[in-house]
Amino acid sequence: MDASQNPGPVETEFETDPSRYRHWEVTYDGDIATVIMRVQPDGGLREGYELKLNSYDLGVDIELADVVRRMRFEHPEVRCVVVTSGTDNVFCAGANIHMLGSSTHAWKVNFCKFTNETRCEIEDAEAFSNQVYVAACNGTTAGGGYELALACREIYLIDDGNSAVSLPEVPLLGVLPGTGGLTRLVDKRKVRRDRADVFSTTAEGIRGKKAVKWNLVDGVFPRSKFDKKIRARAEALAARFKDSLLTGERTGVTLGPLSPSKEPGKRVYKHVTLEWDDATRLATLTVAGPSAEDVAIAQQGAEAIFAAGDQLWALRAMRELDDALLYLRVNLMDVGLVLVRTTGDAARTLAHDKALWAARGHWFVNEVLRHMARALRRMDLTSRSFFALGEAGTAFAGCLLELALASDRFYLLDDPDNVVQVGVGPLNAALPMSHGCTRLDAHLYGEPEKLEEVIGALAEGALYEPEDADDAGLVTVLLDDIDWEDDVRVAIEERVSQSPDALTGMEANLRFPGAENATSKIYARLTAWQNWIFIRPNATGPTGALTLYGRPERPRFNWGRV
Amino acid sequence: MDASQNPGPVETEFETDPSRYRHWEVTYDGDIATVIMRVQPDGGLREGYELKLNSYDLGVDIELADVVRRMRFEHPEVRCVVVTSGTDNVFCAGANIHMLGSSTHAWKVNFCKFTNETRCEIEDAEAFSNQVYVAACNGTTAGGGYELALACREIYLIDDGNSAVSLPEVPLLGVLPGTGGLTRLVDKRKVRRDRADVFSTTAEGIRGKKAVKWNLVDGVFPRSKFDKKIRARAEALAARFKDSLLTGERTGVTLGPLSPSKEPGKRVYKHVTLEWDDATRLATLTVAGPSAEDVAIAQQGAEAIFAAGDQLWALRAMRELDDALLYLRVNLMDVGLVLVRTTGDAARTLAHDKALWAARGHWFVNEVLRHMARALRRMDLTSRSFFALGEAGTAFAGCLLELALASDRFYLLDDPDNVVQVGVGPLNAALPMSHGCTRLDAHLYGEPEKLEEVIGALAEGALYEPEDADDAGLVTVLLDDIDWEDDVRVAIEERVSQSPDALTGMEANLRFPGAENATSKIYARLTAWQNWIFIRPNATGPTGALTLYGRPERPRFNWGRV
Repeated sequence: MDASQNPGPVETEFETDPSRYRHWEVTYDGDIATVIMRVQPDGGLREGYELKLNSYDLGVDIELADVVRRMRFEHPEVRCVVVTSGTDNVFCAGANIHMLGSSTHAWKVNFCKFTNETRCEIEDAEAFSNQVYVAACNGTTAGGGYELALACREIYLIDDGNSAVSLPEVPLLGVLPGTGGLTRLVDKRKVRRDRADVFSTTAEGIRGKKAVKWNLVDGVFPRSKFDKKIRARAEALAARFKDSLLTGERTGVTLGPLSPSKEPGKRVYKHVTLEWDDATRLATLTVAGPSAEDVAIAQQGAEAIFAAGDQLWALRAMRELDDALLYLRVNLMDVGLVLVRTTGDAARTLAHDKALWAARGHWFVNEVLRHMARALRRMDLTSRSFFALGEAGTAFAGCLLELALASDRFYLLDDPDNVVQVGVGPLNAALPMSHGCTRLDAHLYGEPEKLEEVIGALAEGALYEPEDADDAGLVTVLLDDIDWEDDVRVAIEERVSQSPDALTGMEANLRFPGAENATSKIYARLTAWQNWIFIRPNATGPTGALTLYGRPERPRFNWGRV
Repeated sequence: MDASQNPGPVETEFETDPSRYRHWEVTYDGDIATVIMRVQPDGGLREGYELKLNSYDLGVDIELADVVRRMRFEHPEVRCVVVTSGTDNVFCAGANIHMLGSSTHAWKVNFCKFTNETRCEIEDAEAFSNQVYVAACNGTTAGGGYELALACREIYLIDDGNSAVSLPEVPLLGVLPGTGGLTRLVDKRKVRRDRADVFSTTAEGIRGKKAVKWNLVDGVFPRSKFDKKIRARAEALAARFKDSLLTGERTGVTLGPLSPSKEPGKRVYKHVTLEWDDATRLATLTVAGPSAEDVAIAQQGAEAIFAAGDQLWALRAMRELDDALLYLRVNLMDVGLVLVRTTGDAARTLAHDKALWAARGHWFVNEVLRHMARALRRMDLTSRSFFALGEAGTAFAGCLLELALASDRFYLLDDPDNVVQVGVGPLNAALPMSHGCTRLDAHLYGEPEKLEEVIGALAEGALYEPEDADDAGLVTVLLDDIDWEDDVRVAIEERVSQSPDALTGMEANLRFPGAENATSKIYARLTAWQNWIFIRPNATGPTGALTLYGRPERPRFNWGRV
């Protein structure tokens, strides 16, 4: 099946900017922004499908993610973001079905993961940046369209006797509303589970007062009053979220292009380098720590950090990491293992962390920290094995130690002839995973005394020699220079020889010890079930519902319940 | 693929008793029981594989489930249960790989679900019945064998220079340790996640001091001292768990056979009837509430309830429900929707509940209540749609209301000419779901005021007329007698026409609002990923690792990471 399907363009890039948007328009009016979805039918990322009725593909969502990210950095004055449609009679019809139907399994999975991350970024903006989103559903709101609305704080639907909200995935397509839909229905909006069952199996959806009663939307307004009511609601929310403890002039910081240089098997950014080898299915991700100059700037305080803007090391390096991870996910499908290295100086990285942390009351520094957390979360959710390798000149300290803690294993060299240090600092308590706990919490879940000890050292920061780092519980395998080469080589060879599916499933389970929350339920329970369904013949086989959608034939199901 | 695979025997029955055990021996010595696994290689449930090295299939696990259940009812004096092997040099090699390799996807999924439920019952016995399990791993402990040990409170491994604990599923079979293994490693035993990664990808496993250091086991003992050390540990645990607030003479209650009568399309127990129709893919599950005599017995108090033994309505009805659900799962694969009905009298059911609740301090009543909770949990985890239908003469009250709350929808007739009542009572707060909250909590998750109101009525019990039940938030659809027939018929027809896979995934998401715990992580995150992997060619395709296990060919993987 996969072979005949379109794996996407030769190369997918995730960077964009407003001058290149094809599908979204953003207008600003004081503390209110309006994000207008107007998908160009012929603007698909690939050939072979038309993006009718504001349906979307990855390209549309890459632009939305860019809108959401820039809103925080470039428009910090905005308190309320109204998401609405510029296409007649439809708010959004969800993911394009012909795109899904003609995509490989891997493409579908990666597409859904990215769209899920974007929806979570919308909620993150509300939680940490006082930017709240309102869905102004001025037409049909179906499937992924309603899931986009569900990520907003409030949802208003036009009451025109026709427009409904709906999740028609199960009845029409034989797949799940997998972009958070089922989870947000019952866990976020707390729609009663039996009503959620009725709603999610009713293709035509629900509108009017019943939609309000079931809490599917927060209100319905007739067409004549819709814009005015939305405006009033946006003003009320903007006022409500106006107060902030964060300081600093609310002047935006432009996110310039990253413009990595590209050569075969290599992608070089300013601070990040991604190299890969198709034959060995290995990649190396190298992140350079801050320079002495970077540290000096950060130590001058919030205003100097603000002035550094998008060239601030912590922002630029993490934007590059984010882009490299996204590139890896969809372009380097056969890479199974990523070796993670850091270069620079552990003490310097800690000093930079501490300076950022001291300035965290400034809105821009807050944004930088939140962005770091999101980029690292992208790593937790990337379906590749990661081995962190700490050799001479390593800078696995503070925010860069998070790269080792996000990795499946951390190999550290213990060699008196080389300076190898591991450091912890305040940011190790400030960059939570998607299930809400820090990577230190997750890592030392079973060793509360060690956790307490490390946490006690965070505020001041601490540098550990290799043996001490091992004693602190931070290292998977400590190796002297005699064993290093062979042991690491064998571990790598073993890893890349194992079943990629089994590894993906294993890592998705082992990386998240502790309690789940609604976000991690989306990435675990919901996503795992969707991935299963995506490969079942009842969805994607020759007579599956997704395959046959829009064709005259009715799907033919194997009725066996599994 | 499925067509060429063995779907299991024509009919699988789940009832057994000690006189029929082929694979287990149980000995009793005061408050310590020893459960000895000695799997008969030629005792498989189906032809085509040999159960070598204490590997197991569903038949072996059905016996284990019976051991665990009878231990609580028939041997309430037992405080510590030692699980060990009677087969040389091996504790347990896990699920039989040739059985898995030759099973349909559905059989694998159902097999894993049942084995997971049994492991959870072992933990339930510790939590609620002061019966603690100790794994005495007197030989190789691999895969599902180690997962069985992980369900025990403590794990001891023989230190013979050879025997190791291992989870070789990922490296050898390309599937997950899906019987709770990955979850219990990091969430229960809190093995550090990077160590869990190393352990779960190392086919030969880990033994000796390292196994202790990593908390994979609680201790290792040399062969010469193994039995003595285990005995000492069992005695210490038995002493520690001796005290109990529960009253009553600790004399066992024998669980007699249920012996349903069977005819085509029908299975009739004393209180439960299961009927099905292959053409419409519909089943009806009818549970009869307690009789006036049943209530009179219960109201006489703990000793009378104890004297009723396995004929007590609440025990017998729930054992029958449990058996019917298990029968349905593996024998009626194409049934997509189960209509759930209750007969009897709502007030009588509540009276019976209240009498049980009043006597809950007696060990036997406690066992009955815990058993009810487990049977109902089996329903939450059954991959069939359930519609509860409350018509005239319905007894959806108290513990039987749980059947409606466990259902995906609850249709209730509102007809003044018929007595239709819905009742709540103390047991609605006493029968938690697998993620720890009650079905009322889950049902009214978004309506805390309604929840408070219902909870306030539980102690005394309350009977609601149809409209009041609807106002209380307990009913999905309230219909008068004019609409009932058509509306219910249409709902049924729609449900059975939809993709069974999508419905399974949807229900697995909607049924569990709120927080996850380790148990629900096993059924959600871990199981969903395993189900996905079970259908991926890298596991079960012609060159997949599970398919080729034990053959000379090496598996050939598609290296794409998804």
